[in-house]
Amino acid sequence: MVQAAVMGYGVVGSGVVEVLMQHTESIARRTKEEIGIKYILDIRDFPDSPFREKFTKSFEDILNDDEVKVVAEVMGGVHPAYEFTRQLLESGKSVVTSNKELVATKGAELLKIAKEHNVNYLFEASVGGGVPIIRPLSQCLAANDVIEIAGILNGTTNFILTKMIRENMSFADALAMAQQLGYAERNPAADIEGHDASRKISILASLAYGKHVYPEYVHTDGITRITLEDVAYAASWGGVIKLIGQVKRLEDDTLDITVEPMLIEKSSQLANVDDVFNGILVRGDSTGDVVFYGKGAGKLPTASAVVADIIDCVKHLKKRKYFDWADGDASLVKPYEETSFPVYLRLKTDISKQALTEKVQTLFPNAREIVRANAAPDEYAFATEEMTVGAREKALAALEEGGVQVLSKIRISDL
Amino acid sequence: MVQAAVMGYGVVGSGVVEVLMQHTESIARRTKEEIGIKYILDIRDFPDSPFREKFTKSFEDILNDDEVKVVAEVMGGVHPAYEFTRQLLESGKSVVTSNKELVATKGAELLKIAKEHNVNYLFEASVGGGVPIIRPLSQCLAANDVIEIAGILNGTTNFILTKMIRENMSFADALAMAQQLGYAERNPAADIEGHDASRKISILASLAYGKHVYPEYVHTDGITRITLEDVAYAASWGGVIKLIGQVKRLEDDTLDITVEPMLIEKSSQLANVDDVFNGILVRGDSTGDVVFYGKGAGKLPTASAVVADIIDCVKHLKKRKYFDWADGDASLVKPYEETSFPVYLRLKTDISKQALTEKVQTLFPNAREIVRANAAPDEYAFATEEMTVGAREKALAALEEGGVQVLSKIRISDL
Repeated sequence: MVQAAVMGYGVVGSGVVEVLMQHTESIARRTKEEIGIKYILDIRDFPDSPFREKFTKSFEDILNDDEVKVVAEVMGGVHPAYEFTRQLLESGKSVVTSNKELVATKGAELLKIAKEHNVNYLFEASVGGGVPIIRPLSQCLAANDVIEIAGILNGTTNFILTKMIRENMSFADALAMAQQLGYAERNPAADIEGHDASRKISILASLAYGKHVYPEYVHTDGITRITLEDVAYAASWGGVIKLIGQVKRLEDDTLDITVEPMLIEKSSQLANVDDVFNGILVRGDSTGDVVFYGKGAGKLPTASAVVADIIDCVKHLKKRKYFDWADGDASLVKPYEETSFPVYLRLKTDISKQALTEKVQTLFPNAREIVRANAAPDEYAFATEEMTVGAREKALAALEEGGVQVLSKIRISDL
Repeated sequence: MVQAAVMGYGVVGSGVVEVLMQHTESIARRTKEEIGIKYILDIRDFPDSPFREKFTKSFEDILNDDEVKVVAEVMGGVHPAYEFTRQLLESGKSVVTSNKELVATKGAELLKIAKEHNVNYLFEASVGGGVPIIRPLSQCLAANDVIEIAGILNGTTNFILTKMIRENMSFADALAMAQQLGYAERNPAADIEGHDASRKISILASLAYGKHVYPEYVHTDGITRITLEDVAYAASWGGVIKLIGQVKRLEDDTLDITVEPMLIEKSSQLANVDDVFNGILVRGDSTGDVVFYGKGAGKLPTASAVVADIIDCVKHLKKRKYFDWADGDASLVKPYEETSFPVYLRLKTDISKQALTEKVQTLFPNAREIVRANAAPDEYAFATEEMTVGAREKALAALEEGGVQVLSKIRISDL
């Protein structure tokens, strides 16, 4: 019997306990060991829980118990999860986590400590919830140079966009519905402003490229400015708007890494990933495009990924899994202003269509007009060719000086 | 430097050498070891190959060289691959393979030998080619009871069906085109009769359920009888015809395992897996549906999966990965006659429509008619309710005695 502990008895933590209890037999077959839960750490009381005798409010109970070999950190947040994880690894315990914020901000350091103490720090549940992506990326696709990763990494925003696209629901109404259904939190900023996706693409980029890409290097934009007009133009253009986390290796070996809404062609494998589902596309030089799809969040999917990591730790007690990356700095990333891509523009102007078209064609050569039914008479939309963000911002400033208002500006994906 | 050997220098074998050579640096970063190729076994001569000094015609060169720690068996076929693999494992070398026929027919035995000698026998490339499925199923989804696996597991037949569905091409023409493009072999039986998919679902079932499910227990039917009329009826019904390898655990703990064409609803995640792509859906009790999608075959995708296994072996020299399953027998599997599902039927008859409908409704309660444009006047199609194969065969016999010819009979999937 190998003893484990669970830190945090929220949605994921209680799911971890449930999944471990429900699969005792099949897990024992896989690990050749039974896994017991010796402690559950939470500051709250759970007097009615069938596991009440396992609860503790003292982290030291776990830290100082040599019987505990594996700890699931499912508290979330950086502090005190960081301090706890550090001490556990230093004391020779393996740690598994669903805490994307911690992995994205302290991953390189914690992986280094794990290595020094010959234990494992695993985080399958931190990206994709129940969708396997960390192991496939680091193991199955190990013989590939990763050209690009692009994913719908946040179920909440994908649910909102799906409602806007399919049911013509406004952003505000879709958000309210997501909150009502428990998909979005009362303070939905981390989801709708893209920070959650930003942490996840940071983790995937670090794993794929071997150096820590911190979330602050990731250009991050959310979906709060997306309107139903944009959704309609995207449909006319032949696609949908999705919030995409994306990293590409550029020719100069820097990374183009971003989280932002993008227009995706209908034929793309990601275009049909709807509702709260996640989809992650990995483009390898040998294997081509591989897509992973499933429910990215939720109690049991996420918990089952945490438990899979616990199982892996139990099978590899004192054997290291080589999940690691070196520290990294901002030089890894191409400044956003220098990255280059086409955009969709929605403009409002009182000047004549002919005058507008001339201006647009001068500033954005080969821009193609997009039309939609029921557009306001002073509204125009265009898809531009690829150009750098910096050059485009200059052109847009010139357009605005000429009496044109830029209502929307959304990246067009090449997926 | 860890030395490896490659047995078989065909499409996959030459790909393995190419992928290893092209990724020396990134592989060394992952394994902390360089991987060298010491031998390539092939009975043919390759005097112009840049690797000509590595070629050998003698298996004993590899078997008797203690420096060789990992061998990629990419010869295909059961003999002599089986004898070679056995001897290599017994001599303490790890073996990785893309040989689905060998894994499906001798997996339990070879995994047992690997275990006894504390080495690894890995086979990520045997299912899905470059699509990661073996590791995700055995590791990431380890905390799930697998309720069902269903997949488009054969790229050649999926290409043929896609041509039939999208371009109204006949089966014969689509097969000829697949052969011309190199997707199908001159003798296409293993693909179009479903044997390739049958081996793959055997492997996935063995892994998911822990006991060897041999291909001879898998009801196997191919796509040779699918007509354009069936394709048209499937569209009217609201779906497409796909060749599906499927395994479900039934309430009595036996398995419903089959490879056969199925009608899949358009909204299913597998319905849009087209051309030579593979898609595999795993339904877990905790994680829900997870789908893996990518190119299932081809030189470099398959080779990169083989190389990923080589890398894993190098990282785990003398550490066992727990990929194994016990031996199994026919009692694991529910006899096909006793399995239960709905079907689509296409019938031809001279009797009146009213008489036919009465007969059908008596024999197949609640059968719903499906209509298509331009149907022959004596052709009718129905979707039946779920019933056992045995009961249905009796009802069909009664129908045929009443002057009705059964032109087509295709399973309707519940995916």
